[in-house]
This record gives sequence, structure tokens and C-alpha cells, in this order.
Amino acid sequence: MDVLRVDDGLDGEERMVRDTVRAFVAEKIAPHLAEWFEDGVFPARDLAPELGRLGLLGMHLEGYGCAGASAVAYGVACRELEAADSGLRSFVSVQGSLAMAAIHKFGSEEQKTAWLPRMASGEAIGCFGLTEPDRGSDPGDMRTRARRDGSDWVLDGTKMWITNGSVADVAVVWARVEDEGIRGFVVPAGTPGFGASDIHRKMSLRASVTSELVLDGVRLPGDAVLPGVTGLKGPLSCLSEARYGILWGAVGAGRACYEAAVDYARTREQFGKPLGAFQLTQEKLAWMEVALGRAGLVALHIGRAKDAGKVTPQQVSFGKLANVRAAIDVAREARTILGANGITLEYPVIRHMNNLESVLTYEGTQEVHLLTLGKAITGLDAFR
Amino acid sequence: MDVLRVDDGLDGEERMVRDTVRAFVAEKIAPHLAEWFEDGVFPARDLAPELGRLGLLGMHLEGYGCAGASAVAYGVACRELEAADSGLRSFVSVQGSLAMAAIHKFGSEEQKTAWLPRMASGEAIGCFGLTEPDRGSDPGDMRTRARRDGSDWVLDGTKMWITNGSVADVAVVWARVEDEGIRGFVVPAGTPGFGASDIHRKMSLRASVTSELVLDGVRLPGDAVLPGVTGLKGPLSCLSEARYGILWGAVGAGRACYEAAVDYARTREQFGKPLGAFQLTQEKLAWMEVALGRAGLVALHIGRAKDAGKVTPQQVSFGKLANVRAAIDVAREARTILGANGITLEYPVIRHMNNLESVLTYEGTQEVHLLTLGKAITGLDAFR
Amino acid sequence: MDVLRVDDGLDGEERMVRDTVRAFVAEKIAPHLAEWFEDGVFPARDLAPELGRLGLLGMHLEGYGCAGASAVAYGVACRELEAADSGLRSFVSVQGSLAMAAIHKFGSEEQKTAWLPRMASGEAIGCFGLTEPDRGSDPGDMRTRARRDGSDWVLDGTKMWITNGSVADVAVVWARVEDEGIRGFVVPAGTPGFGASDIHRKMSLRASVTSELVLDGVRLPGDAVLPGVTGLKGPLSCLSEARYGILWGAVGAGRACYEAAVDYARTREQFGKPLGAFQLTQEKLAWMEVALGRAGLVALHIGRAKDAGKVTPQQVSFGKLANVRAAIDVAREARTILGANGITLEYPVIRHMNNLESVLTYEGTQEVHLLTLGKAITGLDAFR
Amino acid sequence: MDVLRVDDGLDGEERMVRDTVRAFVAEKIAPHLAEWFEDGVFPARDLAPELGRLGLLGMHLEGYGCAGASAVAYGVACRELEAADSGLRSFVSVQGSLAMAAIHKFGSEEQKTAWLPRMASGEAIGCFGLTEPDRGSDPGDMRTRARRDGSDWVLDGTKMWITNGSVADVAVVWARVEDEGIRGFVVPAGTPGFGASDIHRKMSLRASVTSELVLDGVRLPGDAVLPGVTGLKGPLSCLSEARYGILWGAVGAGRACYEAAVDYARTREQFGKPLGAFQLTQEKLAWMEVALGRAGLVALHIGRAKDAGKVTPQQVSFGKLANVRAAIDVAREARTILGANGITLEYPVIRHMNNLESVLTYEGTQEVHLLTLGKAITGLDAFR
Repeated sequence: MDVLRVDDGLDGEERMVRDTVRAFVAEKIAPHLAEWFEDGVFPARDLAPELGRLGLLGMHLEGYGCAGASAVAYGVACRELEAADSGLRSFVSVQGSLAMAAIHKFGSEEQKTAWLPRMASGEAIGCFGLTEPDRGSDPGDMRTRARRDGSDWVLDGTKMWITNGSVADVAVVWARVEDEGIRGFVVPAGTPGFGASDIHRKMSLRASVTSELVLDGVRLPGDAVLPGVTGLKGPLSCLSEARYGILWGAVGAGRACYEAAVDYARTREQFGKPLGAFQLTQEKLAWMEVALGRAGLVALHIGRAKDAGKVTPQQVSFGKLANVRAAIDVAREARTILGANGITLEYPVIRHMNNLESVLTYEGTQEVHLLTLGKAITGLDAFR
Repeated sequence: MDVLRVDDGLDGEERMVRDTVRAFVAEKIAPHLAEWFEDGVFPARDLAPELGRLGLLGMHLEGYGCAGASAVAYGVACRELEAADSGLRSFVSVQGSLAMAAIHKFGSEEQKTAWLPRMASGEAIGCFGLTEPDRGSDPGDMRTRARRDGSDWVLDGTKMWITNGSVADVAVVWARVEDEGIRGFVVPAGTPGFGASDIHRKMSLRASVTSELVLDGVRLPGDAVLPGVTGLKGPLSCLSEARYGILWGAVGAGRACYEAAVDYARTREQFGKPLGAFQLTQEKLAWMEVALGRAGLVALHIGRAKDAGKVTPQQVSFGKLANVRAAIDVAREARTILGANGITLEYPVIRHMNNLESVLTYEGTQEVHLLTLGKAITGLDAFR
Repeated sequence: MDVLRVDDGLDGEERMVRDTVRAFVAEKIAPHLAEWFEDGVFPARDLAPELGRLGLLGMHLEGYGCAGASAVAYGVACRELEAADSGLRSFVSVQGSLAMAAIHKFGSEEQKTAWLPRMASGEAIGCFGLTEPDRGSDPGDMRTRARRDGSDWVLDGTKMWITNGSVADVAVVWARVEDEGIRGFVVPAGTPGFGASDIHRKMSLRASVTSELVLDGVRLPGDAVLPGVTGLKGPLSCLSEARYGILWGAVGAGRACYEAAVDYARTREQFGKPLGAFQLTQEKLAWMEVALGRAGLVALHIGRAKDAGKVTPQQVSFGKLANVRAAIDVAREARTILGANGITLEYPVIRHMNNLESVLTYEGTQEVHLLTLGKAITGLDAFR
Repeated sequence: MDVLRVDDGLDGEERMVRDTVRAFVAEKIAPHLAEWFEDGVFPARDLAPELGRLGLLGMHLEGYGCAGASAVAYGVACRELEAADSGLRSFVSVQGSLAMAAIHKFGSEEQKTAWLPRMASGEAIGCFGLTEPDRGSDPGDMRTRARRDGSDWVLDGTKMWITNGSVADVAVVWARVEDEGIRGFVVPAGTPGFGASDIHRKMSLRASVTSELVLDGVRLPGDAVLPGVTGLKGPLSCLSEARYGILWGAVGAGRACYEAAVDYARTREQFGKPLGAFQLTQEKLAWMEVALGRAGLVALHIGRAKDAGKVTPQQVSFGKLANVRAAIDVAREARTILGANGITLEYPVIRHMNNLESVLTYEGTQEVHLLTLGKAITGLDAFR
């Protein structure tokens, strides 16, 4: 498997990251996933320190206890984490590419010192409050408000679909400030008026904490604001970071489904021969191989561009669009190869298949990225 | 919705069935489904008498307390039941089209009298033991054995993916008899050596009971065998009955997803207008309308052929193949229209989407039906 | 082939139409099509009287020498004509459903008497001038103008993609009249200022005459206007008539490809057995069977609604959208089954495949019909 | 266009090749293609010396007047040639990757000296006789026979779908020799008994010469045999060379369609705004961008592997499968964006769309490559 040998393009350090993360998830995560997913739990507090020890939290950031790894190394880590479960990769993405990245990029020295080392080690967990109910694809239409009250800030509003929300020690919350635009705030979890309640009855990312944040007159000191950015470009630049992790992660989720299907096809017999000996099965596997090989090349190409400082937001959109779609298609085909067994959590496929529905939607839906590319191609805006 | 006005082709009785079942599921079933599905339960014992009172159990059979409805009326009922949940329709299919139909077609007068009236009323629940572990698509490769011991029969083997297994009062079990071929047996649930354990950690048909049956030296009297059939054609003819219900049911599942998506698209706004005002959304909805309109015509056409006594197994394969695929495609597109809300059980879509994975697989996978049609078209067998 | 036995739903007269047209095209048309297509010719003048004798021109119209057939009979004729070539069906559609239908619906008694009997017999050929260069999907944006000059009319403008243009004896031309709206005019071909030049280097509908019409100060008597209609609804209602023929015709084109593929798959061997014995081939054939069976049901359903006087424009959009897409998909798959032979005109497949590109585009593109359905579903207009 | 900036990965020489070939085809080829295609002609004799002067014939071979370019440079040349027309690239592929490559790999020093310099300059044209009527995908089932007669060889048989057949000065012909296996022969075109007749009424590769070769007792001297290889691996290794050119060429064909569609979408208006401003158009363009970006990465990745001496036949199968399918999908979507104009040869799209049907089929159909990958993945052979 891996006809194209995409990983031959990784250097020694990147392979080491791959092997380390792969071994970690095989030992510590994979055995529990069916149970976590069935029960709808994710032991964030237990896992964070382990992820921190492996250097996976804020891995691509420099200083403040972060590993300062290359974009490709970070991507490979995301891929291997999501090969276990999209929820695990989401945890790491939200911690490192959203919450920590926001503080790292836009925070004051005090904010960085206060939070980044603790977050890098997994001692503190962060979340990122941008999305609001009913306007997921249009963050510009933000309702959460921050107003100045003396030297303080007071925040009011609701944030929805917030990964890590109820387990976070700190939330980076985006709010509209009249006459200024959108600003970011560092909100410690215990602040009065700040509440988080979990969203249940999910079929996707069940092994992940997804919350609603309520900000009801949350009073913050004046230095709680992120000083380095005003406007939507602040959170959007963080989203682009997170999307970068997704375009690698999706390859991992797809690969896990593919490997399960190949293994099943080689060993299970039907009509007296292995499933894998039937043309209809080989056709599915071959298209899966094509989809994943291509996705692997896309991830590596964009990763190399990122490390060279030349990556564009359109490339990240391309990668998120292309690779998540590829992963979903692979997961769905893999499900059919497993037959009736494909519906149980004994095999990873239907778990990934459901997870990828969230991955398709968050950080820009398929439609948003299609129109982003469409705009780049035609020079014309078709969002509205 | 329903541009083609397919239901204009129903007669008055068929519409009455439709409206009755629709009202029943809206009142008694729909409000509980998210909870049942999340919790993985199906209150079979409570629902069976209600379904019996509505005449839905063995609905298309004649006599013995059964309603004797037309094939189209039965199909319409299946559609409306599956618009609630595929698990509900599966319960009714297994009871009526598999367990009761087997006894009705192949049973002795004593077997019919003993079981059919109680099953029609919902007092007794039945299951159908054909599929075995690891050979789902090839029932001819059956390992369960029945041997004569004096005037008794002794059964040994394992059956897998048995809907209603652990809640059944009676199982119709198929087993290989040396020098005879495959025979059917009526096995009361309490018979020593007969055990049923449920399959958990399913992501599909969670609101349905799916079991493994173990037959460990199950001793039955000589008259426990179904006298009317020997050979694989017995269970296969029952499967064709059940498939007929599926090709209607899938239309219901797809329609429920479509209706949820249309409702959502009309009311939720993004970028300042309803989702339904965007071309990308209209495109999805239009293809869904096309898929469901066609599926509705296929179901009605095959139903009318069945009532005319002219239906062929190939037509049923066509319908199962075409309509389940249509329903899955519709469900998946509907999921995307709902955005992040599409992953929760607050909306019916992701539940149907997962259910349909089972529906795609059972009673003949997509591949089995493709090859069945392929054989009819070319005259050549490509199964092996 | 025809697992669903859709044609069992035809009555005796409809079957007679089917068999008559099928025999006609097999004898008179099919043997010449490869040559006509290669050479880019269509012997309209020779064929028109034969089509007239068979009652196929204006077949569904009443009186004035027309056959007055049912909508289903007319549809069946279109299907069998297009099984030969979309160009042939286009000729009949333009003659009967556009030019004749416009005169029949909106013409004066004098116009009807003057033209319809001659057109029904094939003595006179008609064309329909609506589409203009560069605004095919938006006929409301019409540039052709008609102005009154005394009791006369003077027409100026250009019409594009006009089937039968250069061979027509009469053109029904639509033009904008200031302060009135769009009006139709009956323009004899010899009128000074009226010119038609053919469009060459087409890859689609090569066995069909496609022309550009130039109206350069075309002076017509006052009674040349169609008195019965003003506004875009005039030509649009004719288009809906033509589309009705297309939704049947597409089934014919697809069926011809399917039959060629089945025949090829049964007889050609590769790797020591017939192509049709391979799973990958059976899969293609089975999906083709499904596509065509469904398309046949759609056509018949809409035809019956039309005969009952209950058909809606949305249903016709549904049928055009669904059936042309089905036919294209079938043609493309059939092409691959024929291997290298699939690229030559010795087999009908690549001819149909190219023809269907025109059929997809004219009388409303796929996108136009998607948005038409989308509007019906959501109540929201997304055209602009 | 080219969001991924794939060509940033080319070195200076590769870019020079790209720009040179692009300029050549823009000036000398593109203006004539519509006419050549309509008329079904390809001026091979005139073009060969020009292609030779540019170093494009046997470009990747070493010595004997060949350019000795890298695999990537050769691939880029194929891409730019096929951006003009698949027929042009086919000419170059057959000359360089099949006929010349066979002589270069397996020929005697005398054969190389006699033919390669003349073929590299375009003075002599070659063809490659492997495929036979009705067994395109199974060259092992070869009917052409060579027998020894004294020191001579005598060849009998028929070869089909032979690009350049009737214009070739020399044919490399593969034939079965009893008790030896398949051998290759260098057959000068004038040899008695050797005949070539062209295949007409093609809809694909009309601007290319496709012939049938008849070998009727063709007597050759003993040294006409290629000494360096016996068995099917000889021609198969040449096919793998030609496929390598195809996986680049397909990117060019797809790109040409995409560029035509983008240009059209930006400039043509419908409903008062450019086509490119509609969501439905942007969606198509975005997926085309994704398809071509991925295909470009696949080509470059495999090219680099080839230059590193590490390419596998499975990788070439992957590339041919993936990139030709991508190109066809792009061409078909592009066709729809052009509306009615999309069916004429005034735009390149429908020409490419038809050409790609041949490209899909030759050098291994999609199905053959799916099963090749399937075998690599599962270790199981499903060809028979």
C-alpha cells in the first residue's frame, strides 16, 4: 500500500515524528477509541500532558516551550493523530493551531508567557471561540459584543460548536467592538459569567468535547485583549493554520479506513475466495489508493510551500477541499467492503466516516472552499 | 415537494394506509427516536402490539389474522415506517416478510395456526435466522446443521446479524440437513440450547435489536420443520419479500432527509439570505428531488407488478439497488445542507444516513444486486 | 433487457407507433447515419415527406392534417426516432413541437390553414427562431426587434443555433416589439432580408442542419404576427412542448447505446471469456439498466400526466434534466465497453454521446433546469 | 490558474522545454487543428522534421542523435504537445516511446544506427505493431506469427489501431515464434506483403493517423529480429514508457479545456453577469482546478521517481489511470460551461473530450489499470 511512496519525500526528522506519533496512538489511543466513541467521552485532561510530552501541542510554534517543528513535521503528526481519530487531531489542532497560535501571533508578551508554556506542556487546555449559532460560514456576521467599561472589557454573546469548550482552562474569544471591529480576548475559564455546556447526541466526533460557550457579562481586565490584531483577519489567519492541519489529518483518516478495508479484503472469504480477489473489490481499493496517493502529494506539496514561506490561503483551501472529500469518499467505499461488520465500532471505518462529516463542515465547508477557489480563478465573488 | 406527484397514483385505501402510518409515527415514534438511537434501544415489546393493532404485521398476508393488504399498500406502509427510522421498518419487515411469510408460505397448518395470529397481533415477535458469520452474501455456504435424532431434530450452528433476535418469541432458522439440503425450522425462543446475544457498538440501526443466535444442540420435535420447502429457494424467496419492503422503505428514509434539508434551507440564513436561495443549495435539492421522484416511481411500478402477480426477482433487485443507493445519496447531501447541525440527532438526517449503511448491506449488498442484474442482462454468471 | 418491462404500460396504439417508427428507422435511417454524420449532412428535404406519411410531423396536434395522437404515443415516437439519432428527433421536434405548435397555438386561422397541412405532410419545413448569440439561457434578454412601419412589420436581428434554419420554408421568429413585448412572426424563407447560413465544424448533431438566421430589415405584412400571444410565455410554452419530446428521446438515445454495449459485451472476448462475464462490465451494464429503466418510468409518468391535462412545467424540467443526464451517463459508459471500437462511427455509441451534448444544452441547460426545480422546491429564485 | 503552482517545481531546463514547445504548438499547430480534425488529417510528414529539430523525437533516449533529456523534461514536452491535441502527442509517443524505444532497448547496434538517427531527426517515421483486432487488453493472446524459413523470417498476421501505421517508414512488429515466445521485428514499410490501411470515421484522434497493418507472408532477413528480448515483457516495457508520456499529456489536454472554460466564463454574460460569477460555474471550475492540480503533482512525482531510477510499473499505471480520468472529467465539465459553443471545433474542448476517449482506452484501459493496482494492493489476480 502506498504505490506512490509519498513518504519517501519525508526527511529523517519527519519520519521520526511519524513513527513516534504512530506508536503513541497505537498503544495509548487506538485500544480505547471504540469505547470512547460509543460512550461519547474524550479524556482530554489525561491525554493533554502526554501529548505535551511528545511535543505535539503548539508543535509548529517557536519559543515558549513549543517544539518549533517544520510545517511538514507538524502535518505528519496531524496525519498520524487523525489516523486514530479526528477527535484527537481536533484536540491538538484547537490547542495548537487555534488557541496557542492566536496568542503566539497576536498576544502580548505577558499573555504568551502566562499561557503558552503551560499549554505546550498540556497543563492548560485552550479553546477558540469564533463560530456562533446559525452563522457558521459567515463569521463576519458576528453577534458577540465586547464593550469597554472603564479600563475593563465586558463580553456578551454565545459561541457554538467549540471544541474543548467545557474542558478548557482558557478560551480565546472573538467579539465585535463598536467602532473598532473584531478583537480577540483571552478568557480564563473560571471568569464569572463564562459558561460552557456540552453538545450531546452527536454522531460525529463523539470522542471529542464539543461545547456551547455562553458569555454573560463576562468582565475582563483591559489587558485581556489580544493587542496584535483587529478585524476578521485575526481569527481567519488562525483558521488557515487549523485547516493546514486538517489537510494532513484527512489523509490519516482516509488511510486508516483504507488499511482496514485492504486487510479485510485480503482475509475474508465470500463465494470461496477472498473478497480482494473480486474485480468489484479491487476496483474500489484501486480508486482508494489513487485518492489517498493524490491526497498525500497535495499535503506534502502544500507543507513544503508552507515551510518555504510561500503558501497561500487558496492553496490551503485547495488542500482542505480536496483531501477531506477524498477521505470521505475513501471511508464510504471502505465501509461497503466490510459488509455488515462495517457498521460496528469494532472496525474504525464507520467512526472515521462519521467524524469526517464534521471535518467536511468545520473550518470552512466544502461550498465555502469551492467559492474561495472560484473567486481566485475567476476574480469574481459568488458568495452572496 | 414531490414535483412528479407520484402519490397521485395511489388509490384511496393506499392513501389511508399512508396517512394512518404517518400519523402513528409522528405521534408515537418520532419524538423518541433521537433518544432511542443515542441509547441504542428499541422498545420492541411495547411497539409490537401497536403495530399489530394497525394491521402492519404480516400486512400483505392472507388469513390467520393478517390484513391481506395489497403489495402497494404494504409498500406505502414500509415507506412511512422507514421515514421514521429504518429500524422500525426492519422490525416490521422481519416480523411480516421474513418470519411470518416463511411460516405462511412453507408452514404446516398447525404452525400457521400456532404462530401467525399471535404474530399478526404483535403478541409474539419473530426473527429469521439465515445469515451466518463471515458469509453474508453467500447463504449457500451454510454451516448450521440439522440432523435427525429419532423423530427429533437437533440443530447446531451460529446465526449473525439477526434483527429481533434477542426479543423474539420464535425464530425461523435455516439449517443444512445432510442428503436433503437446506430446511427451515420453527424454534421457540425458550428451547434449551437456543441463545441470543445482542450486537452492540453499532453506528447504524441503533434503534433496532440486532443479535447473534447460538444453537447448541437445540432439540426440536419432528414437526418443527417447515414442510413446504427444501433448498435455498425457501429463504431466498422470503428475502425477495423483504427486499420488496426495502425498496419502498428507502424512499421514506430519503424523503425524511430531503424534507429536513428543504425545511432547513428555507429557514436558515447565511450571508444574509436563506441557504435555499444559493445556487449550490438549490442544485443539491434539485438532484435530491430527482432521485426521490424516480425512486417513488420505481417503487410504485414494482408494487403494481407485484399486485398483478408479474413481478420478477430481477425487478426487486433493481428496486433495492436503485432506491437504496438513491436514498443514501440523498441522505449524504442533506447532511451537508444542515451544516454542523447535520451531525446531531436533533435532526433525522445523520441517523438515516447511518441506518442506510445497513440497508445497503442487508438483503443483498449493492454488489450482489449489480451482479444479479448483470446476469439477467448478459446471461453470464460473474459471482465467482 | 428492460428488466422493469416499462413498455408493458403502453396501450395497443402506442405499441403500434413504436413498432412502426422502429421499423422505419431501422430500414431507412440507420444504414446511413454513420455516413451522414461523418459528412455532416442531413437529407431533410427527402425525409420530411416520409416522416409526414408516417404521421410524425405535428403528430400530437389536432386538425389541419395532423395526427392528433396522444402525448404518450408522440413520446414513444420521439424515443424511437432518437434511438436512431438525436438529429432526426430534433428535426421532428422543431417541425412539430416548435414551429407547428406555435402556429397551432397562437396562429390565426389563415396562418394555420396556410402552413399546418403542408408542414404535417412534410411538404413544408419549419424552423423556430428564438435563441440568440451569447444569451442562450436567457431568452428574456432578446435583441431581435420588430417595429411597425405602416401596416407592415420590419424585423432586424440574429438568431443562432436554429435547427432546420437553412432548409426551412418558414420560420417562426420571436422579436421584441417596443411597448408590447415579445411577439411571434411567421416568416416565409424567401422574404427579402431573411438569410440562413449553416454552422459547420460541429461534433454533435452533425446529421442535422444547424443555422444562423439573419434578419436584415425583413418586411412582413401586418398579418404575419401570431395574434394569439404576447410575451415570453409564447415561446416558452413551445419550448416546454419540445422538452417533452426530449425527455422521451433521450431514453431512446441511451437505449441505443446500451443495446450496442450489451451486444458487444456478450460477443467480444477478452482474456478468454466474453466481456460481459467480467464483474466490471456487469457493473456498468447493471447501472445502465437502472438508469434507463428509471428514465423510461419518468417519461411514461409525465406522458400520462400530459394526456390527463395535469402536467406541469416543473415536471417537464424534471424529465429533461433527469433523462438527458441518464442518457449521457449511459452513453459514456457504453463507450468504454466497446473499447477502441467505441470511437468509430461503425457503432452508434460515440455518435449518440456527442449528440447528447447538444441535447443537454438546448431547450434549457442542466443548470437552468436545476434552478427551475430549485425554485419550485424552495420558493426562491437563484437564477441571478 | 494553477493554484498549487506545480510548475515551481520545474528546473530551468524543464521550463525552457515547456516554453519552447508551448510556443511551437501555439504558432504551428493550434491554428490548424480545427481544420485537421474536421477533415480527419494529420500532416505527419511535414511535422516530423520540425518535431525532430526541436529534439522531441526520442527525446528521453541517449545517443544516436537523441536529446537525452530527463524524464521530467520529456513529460513536460508531452504535456505541452497534448495541450494542443492528443494526436500530436500520440505521434511523438509512438515515434519516441514505442518505436524508437524498442529499437534503443532491444535492437542490435546495426538496427540502432540504421534507424535511430533518422527517426530522431524526423526523416523516418515509425510505428509499433502490438495490438490485434478484438484482443486489445490481452496482448498475450497474440495471433500474429513469425516463423523461420532458412535464415529468413516470415510474418503473418494483422495489427489494429496502429498510430502512424500508413505513414511509417518502419514498423516494430511483435509476433509469436513457436517454441520461443514473442519476438520483435524491424519491418521496413516497403517490404512485400506489408500493407497499411487507415481507419476512418473516427470521432477521436481525427488529427492522427490510425491504421490497420496486414502482414501477409512478409519475408525479413534473419537480422530483422530485435535480439535483446524475448517474451511479452519486451512490448510491455515499451508500453510503460508510452504510458509515462500519457500521464503528462493528459494534464495538458485537461488544462487546455480548463483554460478555455475559464476564459469563456470570465467573458460571456448570461442573466446580466459573467458566467463565472455564478456559483454553479465556480463550483465546476474549482473542481477542475483541483483535478488538474492533483494531476500535475502526480505527473511530477512520478517523473522525479523515473529520473531517480525508482519508478515502478504500478506507479505508471496509477498515473495513467488517475490523470486520464481527471482530464476526461475536466473536459466534460468544460464542455458544459461553453454551452452551445462547446460542441463546435471553434473551441478546443469537444476535440479534447473526444480525443481523451482514445487516450482512456489505449495503453491499457481504465479497467486494466484498476486491476493492475488491485493486484498490487491485494496480491491477488482478478484479470480472469
